[in-house]
Amino acid sequence: MTSPHPAETAPAPLRVGMIGYGFMGAAHSHAWRTAHRFFDLPRTPELRTLAGRSPEALAQAADRYGFAQTTTRWQDVVEDPEIDVVDVCTPGDTHHEIALAALRAGKHVLCEKPLANSVEECEELAAAAAEARARGVRSICGFSYRRTPALAYARQLVQEGAVGEIRQVRAQYLQDWLSDADAPMTWRLQKDKAGSGALGDIGAHVIDLAQWITGTDITAVSGTLQTVVPTRPAAGDMQGLGGKGDASGERQQVTVDDLALFTARFEGGALGAFEATRVAQGRKNAMRLEIHGAKGAIAFDFERMNELEVYDATAGAGRQGFSRVLTTEPEHPYAAAWWPTGHGLGYEHTFTHEIADLVRAIGEGSDPSPSFEEALQVQRVLAAVEQSSHDASRWTSLPAPAPEAASPNPTDAAGGTR
Amino acid sequence: MTSPHPAETAPAPLRVGMIGYGFMGAAHSHAWRTAHRFFDLPRTPELRTLAGRSPEALAQAADRYGFAQTTTRWQDVVEDPEIDVVDVCTPGDTHHEIALAALRAGKHVLCEKPLANSVEECEELAAAAAEARARGVRSICGFSYRRTPALAYARQLVQEGAVGEIRQVRAQYLQDWLSDADAPMTWRLQKDKAGSGALGDIGAHVIDLAQWITGTDITAVSGTLQTVVPTRPAAGDMQGLGGKGDASGERQQVTVDDLALFTARFEGGALGAFEATRVAQGRKNAMRLEIHGAKGAIAFDFERMNELEVYDATAGAGRQGFSRVLTTEPEHPYAAAWWPTGHGLGYEHTFTHEIADLVRAIGEGSDPSPSFEEALQVQRVLAAVEQSSHDASRWTSLPAPAPEAASPNPTDAAGGTR
Amino acid sequence: MTSPHPAETAPAPLRVGMIGYGFMGAAHSHAWRTAHRFFDLPRTPELRTLAGRSPEALAQAADRYGFAQTTTRWQDVVEDPEIDVVDVCTPGDTHHEIALAALRAGKHVLCEKPLANSVEECEELAAAAAEARARGVRSICGFSYRRTPALAYARQLVQEGAVGEIRQVRAQYLQDWLSDADAPMTWRLQKDKAGSGALGDIGAHVIDLAQWITGTDITAVSGTLQTVVPTRPAAGDMQGLGGKGDASGERQQVTVDDLALFTARFEGGALGAFEATRVAQGRKNAMRLEIHGAKGAIAFDFERMNELEVYDATAGAGRQGFSRVLTTEPEHPYAAAWWPTGHGLGYEHTFTHEIADLVRAIGEGSDPSPSFEEALQVQRVLAAVEQSSHDASRWTSLPAPAPEAASPNPTDAAGGTR
Amino acid sequence: MTSPHPAETAPAPLRVGMIGYGFMGAAHSHAWRTAHRFFDLPRTPELRTLAGRSPEALAQAADRYGFAQTTTRWQDVVEDPEIDVVDVCTPGDTHHEIALAALRAGKHVLCEKPLANSVEECEELAAAAAEARARGVRSICGFSYRRTPALAYARQLVQEGAVGEIRQVRAQYLQDWLSDADAPMTWRLQKDKAGSGALGDIGAHVIDLAQWITGTDITAVSGTLQTVVPTRPAAGDMQGLGGKGDASGERQQVTVDDLALFTARFEGGALGAFEATRVAQGRKNAMRLEIHGAKGAIAFDFERMNELEVYDATAGAGRQGFSRVLTTEPEHPYAAAWWPTGHGLGYEHTFTHEIADLVRAIGEGSDPSPSFEEALQVQRVLAAVEQSSHDASRWTSLPAPAPEAASPNPTDAAGGTR
Repeated sequence: MTSPHPAETAPAPLRVGMIGYGFMGAAHSHAWRTAHRFFDLPRTPELRTLAGRSPEALAQAADRYGFAQTTTRWQDVVEDPEIDVVDVCTPGDTHHEIALAALRAGKHVLCEKPLANSVEECEELAAAAAEARARGVRSICGFSYRRTPALAYARQLVQEGAVGEIRQVRAQYLQDWLSDADAPMTWRLQKDKAGSGALGDIGAHVIDLAQWITGTDITAVSGTLQTVVPTRPAAGDMQGLGGKGDASGERQQVTVDDLALFTARFEGGALGAFEATRVAQGRKNAMRLEIHGAKGAIAFDFERMNELEVYDATAGAGRQGFSRVLTTEPEHPYAAAWWPTGHGLGYEHTFTHEIADLVRAIGEGSDPSPSFEEALQVQRVLAAVEQSSHDASRWTSLPAPAPEAASPNPTDAAGGTR
Repeated sequence: MTSPHPAETAPAPLRVGMIGYGFMGAAHSHAWRTAHRFFDLPRTPELRTLAGRSPEALAQAADRYGFAQTTTRWQDVVEDPEIDVVDVCTPGDTHHEIALAALRAGKHVLCEKPLANSVEECEELAAAAAEARARGVRSICGFSYRRTPALAYARQLVQEGAVGEIRQVRAQYLQDWLSDADAPMTWRLQKDKAGSGALGDIGAHVIDLAQWITGTDITAVSGTLQTVVPTRPAAGDMQGLGGKGDASGERQQVTVDDLALFTARFEGGALGAFEATRVAQGRKNAMRLEIHGAKGAIAFDFERMNELEVYDATAGAGRQGFSRVLTTEPEHPYAAAWWPTGHGLGYEHTFTHEIADLVRAIGEGSDPSPSFEEALQVQRVLAAVEQSSHDASRWTSLPAPAPEAASPNPTDAAGGTR
Repeated sequence: MTSPHPAETAPAPLRVGMIGYGFMGAAHSHAWRTAHRFFDLPRTPELRTLAGRSPEALAQAADRYGFAQTTTRWQDVVEDPEIDVVDVCTPGDTHHEIALAALRAGKHVLCEKPLANSVEECEELAAAAAEARARGVRSICGFSYRRTPALAYARQLVQEGAVGEIRQVRAQYLQDWLSDADAPMTWRLQKDKAGSGALGDIGAHVIDLAQWITGTDITAVSGTLQTVVPTRPAAGDMQGLGGKGDASGERQQVTVDDLALFTARFEGGALGAFEATRVAQGRKNAMRLEIHGAKGAIAFDFERMNELEVYDATAGAGRQGFSRVLTTEPEHPYAAAWWPTGHGLGYEHTFTHEIADLVRAIGEGSDPSPSFEEALQVQRVLAAVEQSSHDASRWTSLPAPAPEAASPNPTDAAGGTR
Repeated sequence: MTSPHPAETAPAPLRVGMIGYGFMGAAHSHAWRTAHRFFDLPRTPELRTLAGRSPEALAQAADRYGFAQTTTRWQDVVEDPEIDVVDVCTPGDTHHEIALAALRAGKHVLCEKPLANSVEECEELAAAAAEARARGVRSICGFSYRRTPALAYARQLVQEGAVGEIRQVRAQYLQDWLSDADAPMTWRLQKDKAGSGALGDIGAHVIDLAQWITGTDITAVSGTLQTVVPTRPAAGDMQGLGGKGDASGERQQVTVDDLALFTARFEGGALGAFEATRVAQGRKNAMRLEIHGAKGAIAFDFERMNELEVYDATAGAGRQGFSRVLTTEPEHPYAAAWWPTGHGLGYEHTFTHEIADLVRAIGEGSDPSPSFEEALQVQRVLAAVEQSSHDASRWTSLPAPAPEAASPNPTDAAGGTR
C-alpha cells in the first residue's frame, strides 16, 4: 500500500482565513474544501483559521467547517503571516474595515457582497484594491450567481452576439420569506447592519448579473422602495434567515425595504425593469432574468438553475421558440468538472466555481472577477435607486465613471476536468 | 320531417350593426354568430348591417362574416330603427364620435377598447353612457380578456379572499411583432390614429385586468415610454398587424411608444410593476399577471390561457406550491358551456363570452361590465403614465374620481349550458 | 345600403344531414357553421337535417345547432336527395349500418371514430368507401386531433426528416374522469354500445396519430387491458360524459377497460409505448406524444395544444434543447386562417379544420384523410391489443394489408386566409 | 488562537476503504468527505484506502478524492483491520466476490447497484448480508436516487395515504447518450461486464423507486428489450460514459439492450408502465415517475430534481391541479441540512444523504435501506423482464419471496441541522 502524495511535487497550499461563520461561512467553507476535488487548481486550499465573536459557536463552526483553529479577533487573521487569503463573510457593515485591513496587509481578499454599505466605503475599497493589484494582491467580490453555469453561458451567448443588440432586460429577484407579517426581526432588516433591504441584499445580484451579462453598465434609474411589513416581532438571536419570533409580543421597526422596483437605462440604450422583493408570496428563490435583443432572447429562473431558455429569432420560420437548454453539457461553463449530462448542480456549486476561479487567478497572477470596481458600480446603482425613491422616483443619473476606475479585464469561467 | 323553430315562441332577435371589419370585426362577428349556440340567451343576435369605408372589401367582409347588408356611412347604422346594438370596431380615433351618436340614438353600444384616444373624450362618453343608462340603454367597452375563464376565476378567487390582502401586482403584456426593425408601418404606430402605442393598445388590457381582479383602482403612477425602433418602412395598405413593407425604401417616423414600463400604486396600498412591449423578442402574446397577497398568489400567462396557477400559503407545511389549475371544469366561469374537462378554449372565446354577457344584460335590463366609466379609469391611468414619462418618471397622481362617476354594479360571468 | 350576396356568383351550398346530437353533434355543427367563415371553401355548408331518437331533445338540439329540420328516422337523411353529406355522430355500434347506407346512397360521409366496433365491420366499410370513391363519393373518419396545428406540424417535420429515422414513440392518452369510483355508468362503459373502453375511445386517437405522424403502420403489439373500477352506480340517462349516478345505490358492471397499456412495433422498426387511461388522477386530457429519432425529437401534450416541443440534435454544441414552438404562426398548418401570432386556438378548432379539409376535398374531387382504410388499420391495432391481452400479452401480429387496401393519397392540411 | 478539536470528545472515526475510482468513486468520495459537514453524525468518515487496477490513475484519483493510501489489490482493503466500511464502486461483475468477502470479513458494506449481475449472485449476497446483520454488520445497496428529497417526500406522501390506493405507475428513465450511432463502445454495453444495458443500469433505479415509494413489490412483468444501435466504434479506453471512438473504424457488437419497455403488476393490484432508454433523443436524465391513486397523484422528473408535483383530488372544486412543490423546505427530507428555501440541491447530494443515513445506521446499530434483500428483489424484476422478452413478452411471474427473505425494517431519511 502506498501514500498517494509524493511530497516533492505538491505546490504550496493556499492558506485561508475566514471571518464570519453564518450561512455564507457554511457555503464558502464547503467551496474551499471542494474546489480542488473537481477542478485542476494550481494550489490546494487549506482551511487555517476561522474568526468570529461567540467562542462557543465559533468552535462548533470551525469543527463543522474543517478549520484548524479559531480566534475571536478578526485582526488575528489579517495579521497572520501564515494566511494567504482572507474570506470576509460577516454582515455588510464590517466589510469596509476588514477588507481594507486585509488588502493593506497584502492578503488576497474574497469579500462577500455587498462590498460595503455605502458608495464612499466602496470607493475606498476599490481604490485600495487597485493599489493592492499593483502589488500582485488579488481581490474579488462575492456575486457568486455569476458562476451559475446557465448564467455564465448566457453571458457567453450575449457576448458572442447571439441575441443581437440588447433592447430590454427584465430582472427580478423574488422571495417570500417575509410574507408572513409575524416572521421575526433579523439583522438583515436593520439599516445600520444590512445597509439595505431587498434592494441591496438580493436586488444587488440581479443588478450585477444584468450588467455583467449584457456587458454594459447602468447609467440612470427611476425607482421606488417600500416596506410592506413595517414592524416585526423581536427575535432572540437575530440570526439571518428564518426562525420564529420570541414570545414577548414586542414588535420592532423594520428600517429597510422589503420591496424595490426600478427602471434602469443601460449604456447601450437598453431599458431594464428590475424588482427585488421578499414578499412575493409563493416565490422561493425566483431570480429571473429575461433579455430581449434584436436577434434573440434568453430567459432564466434560479428555481430551475440548471436550465437556460434561448430564443433564436433567426431560426427557420415555424421553428422559432424558446429552447430549454440543460446547461450540464461539457460545453457549458464549469459543467465538465462535474457529472454526466443531465445530472444537475445545486446552489453551493456557484461558490465552488467562484473559489476555483479565484485560486486559478491567484496561481496565474491574473485578476478575478467581479472586481471591487464592479462591486462599486453595483453600489452606485443601489444608491441611485434610493435617491430616486426619495425624489418621487425621478430619473437619477449615476456619476460617470472616472477613466482610471474602469474595470480590469477579469478572468472568467474556469473549465473543468470531467 | 319537421322544422325545429315554432315561430310563436321565439323572442325578438337582437339586431346588430357593426362598424369596422378588420381583425376585431372578424372576432366580434364570430362571437355574435356563436354565443347563442353555447349559452342560453334571452334574445338571438342577428347580423344586420356592416359599415366600412372600402365598398369592395366591405362586401367581401359582410359575406364572410354573415351580415345581411352593408353601408359606407356609419351613420346609416346608428340611425337605422331596425338596429338594436351598435358594435364599434374601428380605430380608436373614431370611437368618440360614433359611440356618442349611437348612445344618443338609443342604441346599445359595444365599443372596442380604447374607449377613445383621450381622457376628455372618454369623460364625455362616460357621461353619455350614464345618461343613456337611465333610459335603459346598455354600454360596454371591449376589454375582452376579462372573459378568459382563468382570469374571471382569478378575480373570483381574489374577491373571495383566497390570496388575502394584495401586496404586489406584476402585469406584463409582451409581444415581439415589432422586434424586426423592418416590420412595416401601420396605423397602430401613428399617434393621430392609435392615440398610443404598446401602452394604450396592450398595456390598457393589463391595467384593466389588474384593477378588475384586485377590485381596486390605480391612484398614481411613475412611468417611462420609449420607442425602441423609431422609423419603419412605409407600408402600402396600413393594415393593422403583420405584413411586409413596400419596396420604396422610404422609412416613416413611428410616433408612439413600442415599450412602456411603469410602477403603479393601488387604492389598497399594493404596488404594481407594469410593462407593455412589442419588442420582447420571443414572446408572442405573453399577457402575464402575478398577484401576491398575504395569504396566497396567482399567476397567469395568456400563452397558456387555459391555465391558472394558484398558490395557497395556508396549505400544510411541505405541501405549498403553485397549483396548475386547468380552468376547464364546470366550476370555472364560462367553462360549463363548452367541452369536457381538459379540452381547452382559444382566443376568440373571450369575445363569445363578452357577447353572451352583453346579450344577457340587455335581456335582463342590467348593466354589463366593463362600463364606460371603468374604461375612462383605464384611460386616466394611460394619461398619467404619459404625463409621468414626460416629467422624468415622477410619481403622478390620478384625479380622485367624482362620486357620481363611480362604476355601476356590473353583471358578471355568465354560466353556461353544457 | 346593399346586400352583400349577389346571387349569381354563389356556388351550390353543401347540404348537411347529421345523425346524432350529443357532444360530437355540438362540436361538428359548430365546425359546419364556422369553417367557411375563416377558410376559403369552394362550397358553403348548409345545416339541413338533424336526426335523433328523442323528438324533444332533438328539436332543442336542432334549434341550438342551427339545423333547418329534424327527423327521428336516420334513413330520412340518407335517402334525402336534398342532402349532400351525411355526418355520423352516433355511438359506434350504429356506424356500420348508417355509414354503409349513406355511401350506397351516394352521400359523402363523415363518420366519427371509431369507424365501427369490429374489424369485420370496418373492412366492409372500407370496401364500400373504395367502391364509392370510384363513383366520386368522398369519405372521412373523424380522427379530428390530426387537425391540431401542432400535430399537423409535427407530421410535417417528421416527414421532412427533421427528426431522422424514428426509433421510439411514446403515446399516452390520460384522463381521470373515471377515477372517482362513484362516477356513474354511461354507454361508453358498455361493451355492446361502445365496443371498447379507454383503448378504443381515446387510445384509438394516439394510435392514429402515431401512425400518421411517423408515416408508418403498426405491425405487432403486446398489450394489457384492465378495468380498474369494475362496477359503477347506475345512471338515469346514460349520457356520455360526467354527471352523477342515481340514488338507488345499484351498481352495474363495467364491461370495457378503463386502462390499456401496450407496446407496438412499427413498420420501420421503431418501438412504441402506448397508454390509454381514464383513471390517471390529475390528468384531464393529456394526450401526449413523444417521438425520438436519430436526429431529433418532438413532444406534445394536448393540455397545451398550441405548443409543440422540437429538439434538434444537429444544433450547435451547448445550444441543444427542446424548443417550445407556439404553433400560431402563419407558417403553421391552419394557423393563418385565425388570429395573430400567440393567440391560441381551442379544442373545437380541430373539427373546423376537419370540415374545411373535407369541403375542399369534395370541391376539388380529391380524397380526404383519414380514409376509412386508415380507420380500419386503427381498428386492427385495437383488435390485436385485445387479442394480445387475452393471450398473456404475447406479441400479436397484425394481418399484412392486402395491396388493394393501401391508403389513397389523401388531401392534407388546408391553408387559411388570415 | 485555539484549535477547535478537543481530542477527548471526538468519537472514533469511521475508516473507509473504497474499491473502484470511476464516476461512482468521484460521487461517493465527495459524499464521504461532505456528509458530516452538513449532518450531525455519530462518527466522522475518514478516507483511508482507495483500491484500483491502474497504479497511475489510482494515485491520481486518491489524491483527487482525498484518500490516504492506495492499493491495486482489493483484498488489501477487505482484510485491513483498520478499515470499518468497504465501499464497492467497481463494475457489476465484480460486486459479488468483493462484497461477499467484505461481509465475511465483518466490514460494513456499501455496494453500488446493481448488487450483482445475476439473481443467483444477489441471493448469495442477500443471504450473506442477513448473516452479517446478525453479527451487527450493516449493508446497503446504492440506489441513491431514493435520497432525492422530492422522491423521499413522495414516498412519505404515498405512505401517509395522500394519494389513496395506488392504481397506476408510470416510470421512465430516459437518456440519449447512445442516440449517436457513432458514440463509442464502453464496458456498460458489454453483457459480461455490465450484466444488462439500459434495463439494468437505469431501469433498475425506477424499479427500485416504484417499489419503494408505493411500498409494494412487483409480482409479474411483460417486457421487451431492444438494441436500437447494434454496433459501435471501438473505444481506446472503455471508459463508462461519453468520449469518442477511436479512428480505426472497427465496430464492435453491443451485447446489451439500449431500450427496454415493460408492464408490471404490483402486489396491491396497480399496473405500471416502465421504460428505460438511452436513445431517447433530447432527454438527458429524465427519470420520470407518475403515480396515480384513488385520491391523488404525484409526478417527478429528475431533470427538475428539486420539484415534486402533487395532485390532491380532494381539493375544492375548481381548485384542483398539480402543485409544483419546491422540496427545499425544512419539512422536506434532508433539506433542513442545506440552504434556505428555494436554493436547490444537485445530483451528488443524493450520495451525501446516502452516506449520512449509512453512518447513522452504523452508529445507531440499525439497518440501512435499501437492504441487499431489496436489491435482490430489483434483480428478480430485471430477470423476469429478460425472460418475458425472450418469451414473446408473455407475462412472467416473479418467484414468491420466501418469508425469511422479507426486508428488515430499514432506517429512513435523515434529518438535518440547518
